[in-house]
Amino acid sequence: MKDTDEFSFLKETFKSLGNQYFDSSGIIVGPGDDAGLVKNTQETIYSVDTSVAGVHFPENLPPEHIAYRSVSTAASDIVACGGILKWILVALTIENSDLAWMRNFVKGLKKFSDDYACPVLGGDLSKGKQQNVAVTVCGAIDQENFMSRDGAKIGDQVFVTGTLGLAKQGLTILKSNSKEIDLSSKYVSKFINPNLNFKFGQAISSYATSCIDVSDGFISDLGHICQASRVGASIDSDLIPIYGELEDALTWGDDYELCFTAPSKAQSDVFNAAKECGVQVSQVGEITEKLELEILHNSRLVSFSKSGYNHFDE
Amino acid sequence: MKDTDEFSFLKETFKSLGNQYFDSSGIIVGPGDDAGLVKNTQETIYSVDTSVAGVHFPENLPPEHIAYRSVSTAASDIVACGGILKWILVALTIENSDLAWMRNFVKGLKKFSDDYACPVLGGDLSKGKQQNVAVTVCGAIDQENFMSRDGAKIGDQVFVTGTLGLAKQGLTILKSNSKEIDLSSKYVSKFINPNLNFKFGQAISSYATSCIDVSDGFISDLGHICQASRVGASIDSDLIPIYGELEDALTWGDDYELCFTAPSKAQSDVFNAAKECGVQVSQVGEITEKLELEILHNSRLVSFSKSGYNHFDE
Repeated sequence: MKDTDEFSFLKETFKSLGNQYFDSSGIIVGPGDDAGLVKNTQETIYSVDTSVAGVHFPENLPPEHIAYRSVSTAASDIVACGGILKWILVALTIENSDLAWMRNFVKGLKKFSDDYACPVLGGDLSKGKQQNVAVTVCGAIDQENFMSRDGAKIGDQVFVTGTLGLAKQGLTILKSNSKEIDLSSKYVSKFINPNLNFKFGQAISSYATSCIDVSDGFISDLGHICQASRVGASIDSDLIPIYGELEDALTWGDDYELCFTAPSKAQSDVFNAAKECGVQVSQVGEITEKLELEILHNSRLVSFSKSGYNHFDE
Repeated sequence: MKDTDEFSFLKETFKSLGNQYFDSSGIIVGPGDDAGLVKNTQETIYSVDTSVAGVHFPENLPPEHIAYRSVSTAASDIVACGGILKWILVALTIENSDLAWMRNFVKGLKKFSDDYACPVLGGDLSKGKQQNVAVTVCGAIDQENFMSRDGAKIGDQVFVTGTLGLAKQGLTILKSNSKEIDLSSKYVSKFINPNLNFKFGQAISSYATSCIDVSDGFISDLGHICQASRVGASIDSDLIPIYGELEDALTWGDDYELCFTAPSKAQSDVFNAAKECGVQVSQVGEITEKLELEILHNSRLVSFSKSGYNHFDE
């Protein structure tokens, strides 16, 4: 794509988008050169996530929210590792050259940048048949505090933050194509504006034995922890705050809450951290030796067709 | 995308793709967790580039070459900064679930990983209407050797590596849809397998005053240097090794050669480095005070309709 108006606009915008946070993020050379140059004082962590129109978000979502949500869902991985957010790279593919669209998209990026004091280190703009936002996120962390998926131990307690199922309801509302969608309702807001509590992630990182963000669905994501840690888990679903149908709440992603494990002696630390950070946290089960994920509902074992995770030999 | 065969395949492949290079790249936790964890001993540089089917490469390009070229064109920015390649992140969007396609794509990634001793730190797989490969590259460099675009000084010599125009001919051949395309011909090979000479980039980085990779076209990319450095340049096009029409060679991108500037006292260093690294380099002009890019052909000024760069007020 040559230097069209949108390209120039994005290029110029990126140069200044969050540049007040360059110093705190160690950025020496920001956007506008072949690469961004960064000084590191800690270990760094990286993740990339793509959001595709009509797949990860409804095609009618306003560009401001496409930007904000795409970056938030990518940055959620930094929370789940216990890191501090350093910077983002945004590779955007759009169908048409539309300056109004771009301005609105940038508005969402700017909001994210300001909400989390996070600079944009660089980006790329391409033309394609479908909106596609690939976001690379970088965080900083001390190695010993990195929360991986593979550290859950038998007897550890299993915790989950927030209420599961809200985002699915938000998506349902967005997809309804109603002309009077309240974007600030708690359901829609949960979908377009996932809550990223970096402070809480960092607080629990010294004692949590494993952590993951609930992006694929609680059962699937806890399954990832169990698989990586070579353990099982027994979950009392009645302890999980949910909205809507139990199966939807436990198998649908998009909530971007945290699911994590910690030894029982750390329970009061977990609840204290939650209180300090303004996070709702629930202890919902424990890690077991048997390589299975048991879900109890009204004290009876339940299984879901959409669980996405019920064996370890995938 | 849930754990389909392709997803599992990619997940498992990524875990081992280039993991023999983890240590040399400082990778502590590789793919498979929420984020990759890296220890840094130098400053780091980052760039992201997206390659879209039908836009950046022909839709009929075999997946092995889509992978190799997409990563190479992204990594070219690390060469242009003078860095050492550390790792890549690959965000892949594909239309259909096709394990054979994925295996072939991974073959190309593996070839790149082996050719450049570069591990894959992580990735993401999404479904979409069009193949889209967003590649984030990380390099390492000492800050004082970072070759930016903004350091060209009046009187500096302008250099270019290789022969410009070969890649366009390669693309023309690929687009011909002939059934007997020789992928190893020097034209096609130039398009699908851009030469990344990290050693040469590093060699010149201590005296080159600016550098860029020729991705948008020589005139456009030298224009980026002039604009960033607030200088002009006078180029004798007869000194530039080209293939095909002069205008095509100077205005078409895809060659991924280096265009750089250095003080005249460094000329012998440049040619010695080129000899040592097996790189063809030509001194093609010099940096001037007048904020214009002058192109001479047979000692007469020429201008091109497609130049993409002939003013500084964009």
